[in-house]
Amino acid sequence: MGCKLCGKEEFYKGLCKEHYINYFENLVKKSIKKYSMLKDSEKILVSVSGGKDSHAVAWVLKKLGYDIELFHINLGIKNFSEISLKEVKKLSNILDLPLHVVNLKDITGKTIENVKKKHCSICGITKRYLMNRFGYENGFDVIVTGHNLDDEVSFMINNILNWDIVHLSKHDPVLPAHDKFLKKVKIFYEIEEELILKYALAENIPFTTAECKYRKDAITLRHRMYFNELKKYRENIKLQFLHGYLKHKDIFKVDDNFKFRECEICGMTSAGKICSFCRVWKIKKNFKLQSQI
Amino acid sequence: MGCKLCGKEEFYKGLCKEHYINYFENLVKKSIKKYSMLKDSEKILVSVSGGKDSHAVAWVLKKLGYDIELFHINLGIKNFSEISLKEVKKLSNILDLPLHVVNLKDITGKTIENVKKKHCSICGITKRYLMNRFGYENGFDVIVTGHNLDDEVSFMINNILNWDIVHLSKHDPVLPAHDKFLKKVKIFYEIEEELILKYALAENIPFTTAECKYRKDAITLRHRMYFNELKKYRENIKLQFLHGYLKHKDIFKVDDNFKFRECEICGMTSAGKICSFCRVWKIKKNFKLQSQI
Repeated sequence: MGCKLCGKEEFYKGLCKEHYINYFENLVKKSIKKYSMLKDSEKILVSVSGGKDSHAVAWVLKKLGYDIELFHINLGIKNFSEISLKEVKKLSNILDLPLHVVNLKDITGKTIENVKKKHCSICGITKRYLMNRFGYENGFDVIVTGHNLDDEVSFMINNILNWDIVHLSKHDPVLPAHDKFLKKVKIFYEIEEELILKYALAENIPFTTAECKYRKDAITLRHRMYFNELKKYRENIKLQFLHGYLKHKDIFKVDDNFKFRECEICGMTSAGKICSFCRVWKIKKNFKLQSQI
Repeated sequence: MGCKLCGKEEFYKGLCKEHYINYFENLVKKSIKKYSMLKDSEKILVSVSGGKDSHAVAWVLKKLGYDIELFHINLGIKNFSEISLKEVKKLSNILDLPLHVVNLKDITGKTIENVKKKHCSICGITKRYLMNRFGYENGFDVIVTGHNLDDEVSFMINNILNWDIVHLSKHDPVLPAHDKFLKKVKIFYEIEEELILKYALAENIPFTTAECKYRKDAITLRHRMYFNELKKYRENIKLQFLHGYLKHKDIFKVDDNFKFRECEICGMTSAGKICSFCRVWKIKKNFKLQSQI
C-alpha cells in the first residue's frame, strides 16, 4: 500500500516521507496555536541534548520561521557527553544557528559522574537551573524543551504514585514566566515519541541514540513501557490521560500566594533561602555563567 | 532456615505455619482497630465469592469472634458459578455460618452470560446492589468484602487514568452508611493478595482458583502486574501509594450536598431517577429479594 495522499512508497502512518513530514509539522503548528505557546516576536532558547526530541524541536521551529538559538550543557558523563556534544554541533551547523555550550565542571568543579546517588533528579535540577539562568541573563523570552507526550504521562504517573501535589500542578504545556523564571514551553506535549523519531529520520536530523547510563534504572522508563502496554487496551490512552489532567488539574492547585525569594548565593528565584542548584552542588559564592562554542 | 520465632520449618516470611497464621490475624486486627472498621455489636454480612479473599474474610472474622453471616450471588457464569457456589457451601458448613444465596436469573431473568459488553462493570453494579439490598432488608449493620491492597491500588490507578474523580473520592477502608446504603468495610485494605493466599493455604480454607472468563481482558489485571513490577524499584510501593492517597484524598472531594433520591422502580438509594441496577437489567417493576440456601 502506498501513500494515501499521492500513492508513493509508504513511510509511516499511511503516508510517504514528504507527506509525513508535512503531517508532523502541521501537528506541531496546531499544538502551538491551541495552547498559545509562542509569539512571533519572542526570542527562543531551545535546550538541546543531542537526542532526537530536542533536535527535532530546533529543526521544526527553524523551519516554521521562529527566532531561535541553541543551548547545551556538557554534563561530563563518559561515553555520552562527548557524543552528545558532537551531534549538537552538527545540528547547529546544519541549521546555521548560534550554539551556547555550558560546562557543568567549569561551574561546580564536578560532573554528574561525581554525584553519588539520585543522578536523574540532580541532573534535572541542574539542567532546569542552567538553561533558565542562561536564558534569563541573555535576554531570551522563552525556553523550549524536547519533552514529549511519553515523557509527560510517565512523569505524571510517577508524581501520582508519590502524591507529589506540587509537581502535579505543573504538567502544563506552557509554564508562564514569574520572578526570574522564564516562560517554558513543550511543543511536543501532545506528540508521541514514535512520531518524533520518524520525523527525525525522515528529515535526516543529526542525533545520537546513546543512552545515559544512569537512566537505565529510572522508574520512569518502566512507566513509559506501561503506557505502551496499555495502548493495547485503548490506543489513545496517553492523550486521553493528558487531556483529563488538563480538565481536572485545578484539584492540584497549590498556594497561589506563595512568595518566592532570591537565592542567597546566586540571586536566582528560589523557594527557600538557597536554591536547589546551589544546594545540591554546594555552591559557596556566585559565579558567572559563560558559554563557549 | 527455620521459623525465626520457634525454629520449626519455615512456611512464609520467615515464620512457621502457626506463627504466620498468628502474624496475619494480628495484621487484620490492627487494621480493624486503626480504621475503626467494626464494632462488636454490629451484625455483619460477609459477601463471599468462592475465592480466597472473601473466604479468608469470613474465616478470620469468625475466628476473631464477630457476629457474621454469609451472602453469595449466583451470577450464572458457566464453569465458574457452580464451582464457586460449591466452595461457598463448604465454607459455610465448616464455619457453621448461615449462608444466603441469591440467583441473578431469578430476579432479572438473565445471567451475566447474557450481557453483551462491559461484563465486569455490570457485574460490579450487580454485586454492589444485591449485597446492599439484601443486607439492608435483613437488618445487617455492615457489609464486609474481600477487597485487598492489590485490588485497591489497581482500581485507584484505573480511576486516575480515567480521571474519575467521583470514584477517586471513595477509596476508603470504611464507607459510612447513608440513606439506604449500608456501611461497607474492607478489612484487607492494607493487606497484599499474596499474604491472604498464604493464610488461606495455612488454614486449609476451602476456595476455588477458577477465574471468571470475562476477567481475563480486564485492564485492572494489567495494573496489578504493573504494581508487582514496581515493587522491584520500591518494595513498599503499594502501601505507600495507598497511604499517600489517604493523606491527600480531600483533593477529590465531591459535592457534599448532593441529594440522593429513591429509585422509582425499586425504592433503593439512587443518584438518578432509576438506579444503575434497574437500568442495566431493564427492571420494570419492583421484585422481592429472596435468598435460598
